[in-house]
Amino acid sequence: MTIITERKETVLKWQEELAGSSPEEVLEWALKIFDTGRIMQSSSLGLEDMVITDMVRRISPDCGVFTLDTGRLFQESYDLLEEARLKWKTPIQVLFPESGAVEALVGEKGPNSFYYSLENRKECCRIRKIEPLKRALSGLDAWICGLRRDQSVTRGTVDLVEWDEAFGLVKINPLAFWSEEQCREYVREHSVPVHALHRKGFPSIGCAPCTRAVRDGEDIRSGRWWWENPESKECGLHKK
Amino acid sequence: MTIITERKETVLKWQEELAGSSPEEVLEWALKIFDTGRIMQSSSLGLEDMVITDMVRRISPDCGVFTLDTGRLFQESYDLLEEARLKWKTPIQVLFPESGAVEALVGEKGPNSFYYSLENRKECCRIRKIEPLKRALSGLDAWICGLRRDQSVTRGTVDLVEWDEAFGLVKINPLAFWSEEQCREYVREHSVPVHALHRKGFPSIGCAPCTRAVRDGEDIRSGRWWWENPESKECGLHKK
Amino acid sequence: MTIITERKETVLKWQEELAGSSPEEVLEWALKIFDTGRIMQSSSLGLEDMVITDMVRRISPDCGVFTLDTGRLFQESYDLLEEARLKWKTPIQVLFPESGAVEALVGEKGPNSFYYSLENRKECCRIRKIEPLKRALSGLDAWICGLRRDQSVTRGTVDLVEWDEAFGLVKINPLAFWSEEQCREYVREHSVPVHALHRKGFPSIGCAPCTRAVRDGEDIRSGRWWWENPESKECGLHKK
Amino acid sequence: MTIITERKETVLKWQEELAGSSPEEVLEWALKIFDTGRIMQSSSLGLEDMVITDMVRRISPDCGVFTLDTGRLFQESYDLLEEARLKWKTPIQVLFPESGAVEALVGEKGPNSFYYSLENRKECCRIRKIEPLKRALSGLDAWICGLRRDQSVTRGTVDLVEWDEAFGLVKINPLAFWSEEQCREYVREHSVPVHALHRKGFPSIGCAPCTRAVRDGEDIRSGRWWWENPESKECGLHKK
Repeated sequence: MTIITERKETVLKWQEELAGSSPEEVLEWALKIFDTGRIMQSSSLGLEDMVITDMVRRISPDCGVFTLDTGRLFQESYDLLEEARLKWKTPIQVLFPESGAVEALVGEKGPNSFYYSLENRKECCRIRKIEPLKRALSGLDAWICGLRRDQSVTRGTVDLVEWDEAFGLVKINPLAFWSEEQCREYVREHSVPVHALHRKGFPSIGCAPCTRAVRDGEDIRSGRWWWENPESKECGLHKK
Repeated sequence: MTIITERKETVLKWQEELAGSSPEEVLEWALKIFDTGRIMQSSSLGLEDMVITDMVRRISPDCGVFTLDTGRLFQESYDLLEEARLKWKTPIQVLFPESGAVEALVGEKGPNSFYYSLENRKECCRIRKIEPLKRALSGLDAWICGLRRDQSVTRGTVDLVEWDEAFGLVKINPLAFWSEEQCREYVREHSVPVHALHRKGFPSIGCAPCTRAVRDGEDIRSGRWWWENPESKECGLHKK
Repeated sequence: MTIITERKETVLKWQEELAGSSPEEVLEWALKIFDTGRIMQSSSLGLEDMVITDMVRRISPDCGVFTLDTGRLFQESYDLLEEARLKWKTPIQVLFPESGAVEALVGEKGPNSFYYSLENRKECCRIRKIEPLKRALSGLDAWICGLRRDQSVTRGTVDLVEWDEAFGLVKINPLAFWSEEQCREYVREHSVPVHALHRKGFPSIGCAPCTRAVRDGEDIRSGRWWWENPESKECGLHKK
Repeated sequence: MTIITERKETVLKWQEELAGSSPEEVLEWALKIFDTGRIMQSSSLGLEDMVITDMVRRISPDCGVFTLDTGRLFQESYDLLEEARLKWKTPIQVLFPESGAVEALVGEKGPNSFYYSLENRKECCRIRKIEPLKRALSGLDAWICGLRRDQSVTRGTVDLVEWDEAFGLVKINPLAFWSEEQCREYVREHSVPVHALHRKGFPSIGCAPCTRAVRDGEDIRSGRWWWENPESKECGLHKK
């Protein structure tokens, strides 16, 4: 049995142990079992991410938080990042794409290449999100994400703790079983800052050109890459 | 007499020779006297820049055009860049800031540091605009810009051709003596694409967090870094 | 118990299990338990490294090998690297220091700064070896090294498998209990190419300015940083 | 007439004016006419380069000197660089190749690829010398080199001042008309440090794997890329 197989089995064991745990319990467990400096929260500044940052800051202020600045975010995303910085008095690490890669992409295919093909869109996600993410994850044993089961058709099987096949480390989703309503309640109760665009009809927020408002009743992630099939709507951060 | 002094004298001589020339005449002269590959247009995607790109494309399609993607532009700026790419069927070179420098700045001072002090603002301009600009200018003998005399209090003495002290090369401003109205007329007549935000009250457009709409009668550049003194409102690209 | 503590305990358990194993048995075990792509050999092109590369190539040709080109190696090191490439018909990955870091160091302190103080020497090792090594180790669960117990006063407690505190992954030293004579016999028997400088009195070979020949009977690593105390003679790759 | 044509004509005029000038007169003229910060000496640490650095230091200590550390130099080259640093109490700027480019080259073609084909050799020179040189020359109007007419079959027409077609700036060769003997006399008289390998039969010194000693009576540059035709023996720094 290889190390990875063993780790996957450990993760299955942990899934059983953590079954029914609250988000805070999951985080307390994770921040105890994974060593400081080898676990971080990855925040996309969404509702769920803000909930988790608040929980993490209460449980273990030493746990780092990073976010990916793709160079194409809404100004409202930067404003929220600033609010977070001021509230929690702790720097959120920002990863930015390599200039050479962006210059080559935009120079060759223009600044809006992602609208033309799924391949182009994934190339853009790779340069602006995945490569910087890899730098952030290097040296970590686990990362904490804000995935929830009822967010999207692509996320129905998300678990509290998973083996992340794509990046080769453990992934913790403390809110896997929470509803959007529970998240909203948490931020109200704890005065957690949230993205200004949520109020304007954007439930899930990514890059500005690839995100739009959705109508009531539409799938939460239907405003992301709205011109693509529902099945392809992941940027590569959360592959199955 | 040093080489630079000599070049400055040559520039003064050129100023006399070019006095009264039309923008097209200035460009024809510049694209004949400066060798291919050693002169480029620097476009900020403003009204004047679009006018010049159209003129340049007619006179000498070989002349390169570059723009600075600071990572904080309006989506409308990217859309215009895409329109330009499709119209002129030629890539506009894009310069993007170094990831390490942006990560250090934002990690330390947050994403909106420029609002807190003039020093911070200039640091952000330096990392996102000046350093990439220097890469673009390296190896050039001249750059073509869209400065006009009546744009701002800081631009009243702009000339058709100047020695650029800050970057050490010749600067061509073919529209130095044109009015905004003349630019508008040109784009109407030649169906040149323009920035969508002009219609929404933004006469001068830079980074999203540092640009706002102005009221009728206000100075054209009053929407740039609106919280600063009028005298300090240059990003360093066009120092006197 | 944290993950790292658990891993350390696993390593202790492995130490017991592997006690008395031959180098080949250790490697067979390691290449089975650690997943392809997550274990690599780190070669400094020394006698021990060449032995291990030969064993690794026989057991699992998929296992990658990397070496650190510090920019200050002996030409004989490059010649051996080339011989290895031709013999095993497989690329050895080469890591090279970041140009900016080397330019800053040499520009400020000159090219031979390491002779002036221990601090300088460690700074040079950090830029030319440790930083590139970190890039090589990112994403690995284990690395295979050529440490032997009787190489030096600093290596007397080396084990077949260890938890590498400095870099946070498992370290495999298949030759921990071999003598130099056993290594020499192996390369003779298997026609493994070895460093040309071994024949000229260099038992341990690093960067050219920091390595010299030793006299018979001197400690094997006494030719490395010969002006320093025996206790400080590690470059940071193999910290205790 | 374009700017470059005009510059070439100016250079021809300068050639006439400088005819018969001593190296010091050429340097005095160059350091007066080209502005500080826009002219540098490029030193390969050869006999001629050391002569020029000494002259430059006497005439204008502000004039910068740079050298290219290819990552494959002789230790004796670094030792001379250190002697120079101590003697002239001024840093010599060092340019180092980009790690990514070296890693890709060596990873794919091995560390000694240059022996296999002229194309390979030029690729190696490009990565280790030409690209770093371009960074050094960016922003300069002139560079000072140590070329002499009788150095090689490829250098018979070298002049005191030339237009450098390859890199687009003026090239000053103050020693164009000096003999090797004159250089030797100068260093003796002024106690200028010289490369230790000159005494071992190396008249022209480049990268360690591409330089060898020559026999008495052989062409001075016959020890550089000795396996190639005499006509191809330039690395690209000094193209005609």
